[in-house]
Amino acid sequence: MSGDFTEEEKNGLYKAVYSRRDVRAHFTSEPIEDKILTKILNAAHHAPSVGFSQPWNFILIKSTSTKKKIKESFEKEKTRSSDMVKEPRKSKYLSFKLEGILDSPVNICVTYDPSKFGPFVIGRSSIPETGIYSVCCAVQNLWLAARTEGIGLGWVSILSNETLRETLKLPDHVVPVAYLCLGYVDEFAQKPDLESSGWLPRLDLKDVVYYEKWEQKDSPEWNQIHEMIRTNLDYA
Amino acid sequence: MSGDFTEEEKNGLYKAVYSRRDVRAHFTSEPIEDKILTKILNAAHHAPSVGFSQPWNFILIKSTSTKKKIKESFEKEKTRSSDMVKEPRKSKYLSFKLEGILDSPVNICVTYDPSKFGPFVIGRSSIPETGIYSVCCAVQNLWLAARTEGIGLGWVSILSNETLRETLKLPDHVVPVAYLCLGYVDEFAQKPDLESSGWLPRLDLKDVVYYEKWEQKDSPEWNQIHEMIRTNLDYA
Repeated sequence: MSGDFTEEEKNGLYKAVYSRRDVRAHFTSEPIEDKILTKILNAAHHAPSVGFSQPWNFILIKSTSTKKKIKESFEKEKTRSSDMVKEPRKSKYLSFKLEGILDSPVNICVTYDPSKFGPFVIGRSSIPETGIYSVCCAVQNLWLAARTEGIGLGWVSILSNETLRETLKLPDHVVPVAYLCLGYVDEFAQKPDLESSGWLPRLDLKDVVYYEKWEQKDSPEWNQIHEMIRTNLDYA
Repeated sequence: MSGDFTEEEKNGLYKAVYSRRDVRAHFTSEPIEDKILTKILNAAHHAPSVGFSQPWNFILIKSTSTKKKIKESFEKEKTRSSDMVKEPRKSKYLSFKLEGILDSPVNICVTYDPSKFGPFVIGRSSIPETGIYSVCCAVQNLWLAARTEGIGLGWVSILSNETLRETLKLPDHVVPVAYLCLGYVDEFAQKPDLESSGWLPRLDLKDVVYYEKWEQKDSPEWNQIHEMIRTNLDYA
């Protein structure tokens, strides 16, 4: 069954994966066409979900008053969390632009509703968290589809879920999973901002792959791939 | 910045999204080339992560004794969970093939390690779960990359995380997020198995999109896209 993707189609997937960025700045004023936004949402809706439960909802937001409330929550949480970091990293952290809530034309809150098709969902009874994991897969589909359309996306995780719940009128059983800011951008950065700024390095692939069990960095059965991963530090 | 993907490259992404399946059967005996497996792992490693924490690890498994232990755990959990369903759905549930642990050449356990670059990770202090969410994004990258290479992937969530911990020697602070089975397949099904079998229907996109707040199914500012989503029931 291999070979049903052309080289260019394959490249499209890898290009989206490697050039996708968490975007917080450089949004242009160009609105997102309805057709394109629909395409992106539909890609998200076709993510895998445990027991085919499709437990996600996408709340589209462009109300300025809603955005302002979320932005306030962001500012509060950013200040609060900065107390966890010592100088000089604290000042560096505070200097980063970490959201584009008001600058981006469309915000989307992606939520998890465990009550859909429930209570029994195939595959969810042993590890209930797999419901939320499904929603994260939808976010990643959305992100990659947006990238191919030239749309930047930033995931804002510095905010209070309580504020999200109140502002978007979420029922108690629904979990806000992701708050996303979308818009066309002037450019996509070559590297993640936190890498370029020297905040953290990208790990080598060899540092995140183990063989047969935790922390086992080599294994006779995996010799060849181990050598390939160890010696080729840049595949992207 | 839109327009940096050719139509065929864009199609590649959407084709992967729409033809990706959770695969539990039809694995062939063809081994996965090391180079292809490395490409797929590297795509996973380039997922977004909160504060660039890259909190994932990929444990590659082909040991038959490990696979057998995981398969035993699957059988036990499947039987246990079937007691939650009443007949006739119980028999239907038990008749489904839900894993390809022993049939697939490569299993991968994807884990979350919150201690990487910690304790302070940018963006993780308000919503600590975002660490695990990053790992799920990596799983989805892995899944889509595998699909473009003609490799089927099945996520086994009917198992005990305790068994995974013991078998793979995971330290207490590490969370097993996904147990994946990979291999070339004869074919990818047109639709998800649980849809074809009539277990659950695919929701329409209009049923998962809200406007400005929870359960708001229309809004003056979103009239046009609402109409587009309402009337076009199949975009894929």
